[in-house]
Amino acid sequence: MPLPTADTAAAALVALRERNPLVQSLTNVVSANFLTNALLAAGATTALVDNPREAGEFAAVADSVLVNLGTPTEEQARAFTCAVSGARGPWVLDPVAVGGLSWRTEIADRLLAHRPAAVRGNPSEIGALAGLESTSRGVDSSADPADSAQASRKLLDVTTAAAASGAVDHITGRTADDEVATVRVHGGSGYLPRITASGCALGALSAAYLAVTDPFTGLVAAHAHFATASEAAERHCSGPGTFIPAFLDALAATTPDDLRATRIDVL
Amino acid sequence: MPLPTADTAAAALVALRERNPLVQSLTNVVSANFLTNALLAAGATTALVDNPREAGEFAAVADSVLVNLGTPTEEQARAFTCAVSGARGPWVLDPVAVGGLSWRTEIADRLLAHRPAAVRGNPSEIGALAGLESTSRGVDSSADPADSAQASRKLLDVTTAAAASGAVDHITGRTADDEVATVRVHGGSGYLPRITASGCALGALSAAYLAVTDPFTGLVAAHAHFATASEAAERHCSGPGTFIPAFLDALAATTPDDLRATRIDVL
Amino acid sequence: MPLPTADTAAAALVALRERNPLVQSLTNVVSANFLTNALLAAGATTALVDNPREAGEFAAVADSVLVNLGTPTEEQARAFTCAVSGARGPWVLDPVAVGGLSWRTEIADRLLAHRPAAVRGNPSEIGALAGLESTSRGVDSSADPADSAQASRKLLDVTTAAAASGAVDHITGRTADDEVATVRVHGGSGYLPRITASGCALGALSAAYLAVTDPFTGLVAAHAHFATASEAAERHCSGPGTFIPAFLDALAATTPDDLRATRIDVL
Repeated sequence: MPLPTADTAAAALVALRERNPLVQSLTNVVSANFLTNALLAAGATTALVDNPREAGEFAAVADSVLVNLGTPTEEQARAFTCAVSGARGPWVLDPVAVGGLSWRTEIADRLLAHRPAAVRGNPSEIGALAGLESTSRGVDSSADPADSAQASRKLLDVTTAAAASGAVDHITGRTADDEVATVRVHGGSGYLPRITASGCALGALSAAYLAVTDPFTGLVAAHAHFATASEAAERHCSGPGTFIPAFLDALAATTPDDLRATRIDVL
Repeated sequence: MPLPTADTAAAALVALRERNPLVQSLTNVVSANFLTNALLAAGATTALVDNPREAGEFAAVADSVLVNLGTPTEEQARAFTCAVSGARGPWVLDPVAVGGLSWRTEIADRLLAHRPAAVRGNPSEIGALAGLESTSRGVDSSADPADSAQASRKLLDVTTAAAASGAVDHITGRTADDEVATVRVHGGSGYLPRITASGCALGALSAAYLAVTDPFTGLVAAHAHFATASEAAERHCSGPGTFIPAFLDALAATTPDDLRATRIDVL
Repeated sequence: MPLPTADTAAAALVALRERNPLVQSLTNVVSANFLTNALLAAGATTALVDNPREAGEFAAVADSVLVNLGTPTEEQARAFTCAVSGARGPWVLDPVAVGGLSWRTEIADRLLAHRPAAVRGNPSEIGALAGLESTSRGVDSSADPADSAQASRKLLDVTTAAAASGAVDHITGRTADDEVATVRVHGGSGYLPRITASGCALGALSAAYLAVTDPFTGLVAAHAHFATASEAAERHCSGPGTFIPAFLDALAATTPDDLRATRIDVL
């Protein structure tokens, strides 16, 4: 299997729109609405089944699962384990603020034993998850995505692909041929870090793509979809507020040809 | 009492705007913000008092109550019972994903004993609630609203009116004269199922209308208000993202004359 | 120290944009997304760390803390205490529906012992908090902000400044010179009470400003920022729905010169 490219991202988008996968999202309260609208716009669907009584039951029918550690509760933390244990499809970990806060760092460590198909975070979260020193003060990151490639390679012991999202996204993964590489997705908009839950929605979209393609290709396709759509949205907004609906419009309007034009290269 | 018509829907809207009812919403985290903005725009108001320590206390002063089963927690499940037991006004059940998931199906069964004034769901949820076989894979529905008329009639043993929302809404109810009929509300926008929580907001608006009119008329008025506003919003948007603010604008701008022009007929 | 003015509000905005403070928000589910986007747009950032295992840990690094009582859970109520006990910076109390509901009124009473740096609410909440008779039926208020100046003065036993937000905002505080006064912020938009969580976002923005200036000046600056931005947004919207993104745009676009033009006077 070759490395992910703009062409395989385009093919993944075609598959996403054809199969309209159902993602189970266990996520934070800030992102719940936006993340769902982002998935619906992009070509998937999601249900937030995050209580321990139903999380495993639903994971057995959902096409993939997202676990986002943004605002955990006791019940949700139990549901995380139920969902990843019961998942019939791939699951994605979004380790929000891991490294900066103790409880969720323990939760993340425990969840890694269940081997996520992919991990998506900001560079400091990816670094913390790989056991590196964290400099994060919370949910935002000042670390450089490029520095996280090494951390991402460490994570390949427990996952198939890891994305450090940033101005340039660095996605490190293992292909079916057991080749390991870091692929960069260029482009995007400076508005993305200026609205909340954009990273969370990207994690959810990653889970959606993983339902229709392999983890490495899926992460690259999700990041390319976000980069392309955010550039289009920036041309139709007058600030971070109007960027939000414009971005949802653009996620829906993105075509395979748009993804084919994304600038993707190998580090 | 005659069957609900476009004229009685228009009269209900006049009453809604005059009385500005306060709905207590016990709802899921995805819908919380959008549902509240939808009620404020339409002409009502709401407060999400969904903890078991205060839910009954607030239900005693709220004009009506919405119980939406979208993302239940242990505390919220206890609060559901407190609220419907203590409600001074009518309460509406929105049985999100009932039939597809076990815990909330049990919760719904228990709540039905408290006799909701009305039920609103998608066709597969209405079918499941009536004890029929469910084919739902989650929160969306592929079932035909028309098929749910029979299920809705079964539900009239425990409620006064039941709505199966869809491309054409089918609302089955009992009039004050004990006449049972199914009324259809035509129109609407293809964007409604492409944004999250539109059904939840429709359930909340149903609760608002039930505070100012009888359950059958209230369900028809809420669905007519949504259908009309969504058509107007579709003319002012360029995708699912910009549909959202346009739809809130349209809920606010809808006039009694607009509702009088809705196409409503008897099945 | 002189009383807060439009000039000191403008200076506070400069400081906010330079220092980009991190606010810990313990808030209700309705406001979570909008409040975060409002802070990001205005020039701050926030993380919703509201579980009792991490709330104190995060309060020790956050620049300020917001406690909003809108939709408390048992875990969140414990986290409130952890956060205000562990806060290294100032904390702000937003007493949503206090006086109208029993449990949160007890919570608010207990929290006052930890002496918030500032309090922000609607007039009836401020009145209830000061032990006065409440007429509130929930989260909205029909009381006059002017009447709350007396209640706010009472609250200065336990806090440094208290804001009663309304058509004209009344902010009562104590300066470093121990002078007590009530300052009024004029302007704003009739759309603010027609969208949900605008008051919650104002409480969060107050917490952000308190991280960069004294409590009295911070409350005045936050209210001036909101008043100015809402007026600008009203010129770019066609209803309450389109007001929301326009308002976020305007929070970002507000300049120190805009704040310098705010009409602020002493009662």
